Amino acid sequence: MIISLTTDFGLGDGYVGAMKGVISGIAPGVPLVDITHIINPQDLGGAAYVLWTAVPYFTEDSVHLVVVDPGVGTARRAIASRTPWGVVVGPDNGIFTYLWAAARPDLTVALENARYCRTTISSTFHGRDVFAPAAAYVAAGLPLEELGPVVSDPVTLPLPQMEIGSRSIQGEVIYIDHFGNAITNIGRLIWEGPVLHLDPAFGTTEARMINASRVTVRLPGRIVLPNRGGPTNRASHSDIGRIHRTYGETTQGELLALVGSEGMLEIAVNQGDAARTLGLRVGTPVELVEPGEGD
Amino acid sequence: MIISLTTDFGLGDGYVGAMKGVISGIAPGVPLVDITHIINPQDLGGAAYVLWTAVPYFTEDSVHLVVVDPGVGTARRAIASRTPWGVVVGPDNGIFTYLWAAARPDLTVALENARYCRTTISSTFHGRDVFAPAAAYVAAGLPLEELGPVVSDPVTLPLPQMEIGSRSIQGEVIYIDHFGNAITNIGRLIWEGPVLHLDPAFGTTEARMINASRVTVRLPGRIVLPNRGGPTNRASHSDIGRIHRTYGETTQGELLALVGSEGMLEIAVNQGDAARTLGLRVGTPVELVEPGEGD
Amino acid sequence: MIISLTTDFGLGDGYVGAMKGVISGIAPGVPLVDITHIINPQDLGGAAYVLWTAVPYFTEDSVHLVVVDPGVGTARRAIASRTPWGVVVGPDNGIFTYLWAAARPDLTVALENARYCRTTISSTFHGRDVFAPAAAYVAAGLPLEELGPVVSDPVTLPLPQMEIGSRSIQGEVIYIDHFGNAITNIGRLIWEGPVLHLDPAFGTTEARMINASRVTVRLPGRIVLPNRGGPTNRASHSDIGRIHRTYGETTQGELLALVGSEGMLEIAVNQGDAARTLGLRVGTPVELVEPGEGD
Repeated sequence: MIISLTTDFGLGDGYVGAMKGVISGIAPGVPLVDITHIINPQDLGGAAYVLWTAVPYFTEDSVHLVVVDPGVGTARRAIASRTPWGVVVGPDNGIFTYLWAAARPDLTVALENARYCRTTISSTFHGRDVFAPAAAYVAAGLPLEELGPVVSDPVTLPLPQMEIGSRSIQGEVIYIDHFGNAITNIGRLIWEGPVLHLDPAFGTTEARMINASRVTVRLPGRIVLPNRGGPTNRASHSDIGRIHRTYGETTQGELLALVGSEGMLEIAVNQGDAARTLGLRVGTPVELVEPGEGD
Repeated sequence: MIISLTTDFGLGDGYVGAMKGVISGIAPGVPLVDITHIINPQDLGGAAYVLWTAVPYFTEDSVHLVVVDPGVGTARRAIASRTPWGVVVGPDNGIFTYLWAAARPDLTVALENARYCRTTISSTFHGRDVFAPAAAYVAAGLPLEELGPVVSDPVTLPLPQMEIGSRSIQGEVIYIDHFGNAITNIGRLIWEGPVLHLDPAFGTTEARMINASRVTVRLPGRIVLPNRGGPTNRASHSDIGRIHRTYGETTQGELLALVGSEGMLEIAVNQGDAARTLGLRVGTPVELVEPGEGD
Repeated sequence: MIISLTTDFGLGDGYVGAMKGVISGIAPGVPLVDITHIINPQDLGGAAYVLWTAVPYFTEDSVHLVVVDPGVGTARRAIASRTPWGVVVGPDNGIFTYLWAAARPDLTVALENARYCRTTISSTFHGRDVFAPAAAYVAAGLPLEELGPVVSDPVTLPLPQMEIGSRSIQGEVIYIDHFGNAITNIGRLIWEGPVLHLDPAFGTTEARMINASRVTVRLPGRIVLPNRGGPTNRASHSDIGRIHRTYGETTQGELLALVGSEGMLEIAVNQGDAARTLGLRVGTPVELVEPGEGD
């Protein structure tokens, strides 16, 4: 039993503390852990990705309170949804899309039972007044069904799809992490000896074997050289000639492609910042190109 | 039972960890939660405001350890004070002013009993050597009276007062939050249908009804247009023509006034940063102007 | 019983949350506390110092999970080591050097027993797949010996040594904290009335008495004046004429030397940022010069 918190509230205000206070009054003694509070303000896609990298490592009796809520005070629903990794609680705006794609939820309900909200509900801070109490009551043992009616059509974000051609796989950057690593939707990739097995993560059904040492990873190339202020070299694209197993196979400053901790193709610079160096952003196309028969 | 921590220590050093270690040795098993550790260094007013937005959501058996302490090592007192939302522990420099204005404390004592400090007290880190042990002993059940003598004159900061005229209310910005929202001392405002009831928060005794759709919110206007580097347009003041209930009633980028989560008048930009856009700072005057009879 | 977490993962991604999830599944109910997650990426010396300022305040039954791991996926060992302040768990790359210098560990083992790792071990995220499970199993009561074979030669970083001359002590800056205070390796300094007793912290055996009011603290002087953009004044060195007991003995903006919370000589600016003002960095030499007999 544990409650995790994920928000875009930042780390400097009292908002997160207020939610922790509300929870501790309803579910005293339940441990609280922070996942992150610096989701980019109102970045639903970023929130969805971060949750997908953290929530599946928790057990079924956990509760995950998520407040990234640009629609607060409008008619958007508030929901709780039971997953194999615990109950997720938050606004119905698509932040649970990746989790639901990984495992269809048992049950999703709308938080409409006023008994499990704070007495006065502000129009700007449902994290404190609606979501935190709901999460705490669930952690304290309340059946999900008590919170409100079943929701059969929760909001989802469009999932970035791979396009799998005969000799290439096209995807895109879906997240830039703290180190500047660019994570793509090309995955999940699983090592089988020297070869990668592609086991599609989001919806695509076709699997594929990839020769890691012969494949080319192609990025649209804006190469920003480190000399700031000076002239900037631009290349039409950047090619990486193989997929490595680990940073340790490369030298400091070297650009590499590898399989990240979630099994997704990832672009990195050894002890550097790939996103800044290469100008990569969420949505930047990335292509895996396999050699032709005559190559 | 829970202990919260609020400091200006930042997030990168070992200071917060040292306090958590000291606490865990004296009060093992008591959950610890962070409120914030990035209060602006030595910003007593900011600390006082943040505590006011977080601490009142905790229950009476909580302990709140607060270390924003520019006077460490001088003769300033160290105190613990019992509020309806738990015992607050920290330096006697005014950081509890807003909490005490919201509810007069039962009892305030000075932390003078050396038995409840660490054996060696550094002259620069009372958070670890004085405040953390005191907070932990209180959480472990020690009566407040054991910590030291009663303090009858704790230090308070001047509370920013509203000035209520016949057709206007003058206040000021008291806090800028993570989103760039500017929170004022004009409050507490409570919706009663389409009308706002003003229920003074800090000391002022006069109440007032305000027509939210006809009132003008006037700011001293430095409008910084988004085109950075280009010419800056400056207006002598900015007017907002009404008070909204929620961000959702406005469009992206729109300037609005609304009632924040603590019931205070707040200046915001929908999915933007009002403080940066308008050059608002703590102390910037804000005025509510009601239409005259002939308007 | 408590588990602390220290990483260079930053605060915005899901990596720390994933580790907390793994731990909560193996050691449910054990409180988790964050020390810091913003160690400079792959800064082993900074990690070693931060751990030294935090871990020794915990009790013996604690577990400290540390993941600053530039060598992840290479042959570097993973270790757990029993100290007087709990078991430290992390990569064998020198991050525990200062702790081990403060107290030789009872036992250090390599994490080689696959039973106590996650079933699938990624090549890039041993924090989640190796270190978090090990820390959780230890917290749940597993004897250290079960994790793997004894390590007799763990990796250590070179300890910065003081050079003690007849009338001077030479050291260097070993850490810059959040406030911009520059902490040196000159210590531990203990006040005995008006005099400082030097009780060497890292290896040096010679002790020394220092007259705090007559000693000169000499820094190589790059004085960066506050007027940014304007001309910069540079001095060949900066002298501070004494060692103070506390910030409160100086005025706002004043440069001072004092004994920091760990007993090390520290360079600070009262309510300012000494490192930025003086251009101090890790490795900057600092010298204590005592007056000669004829002075």
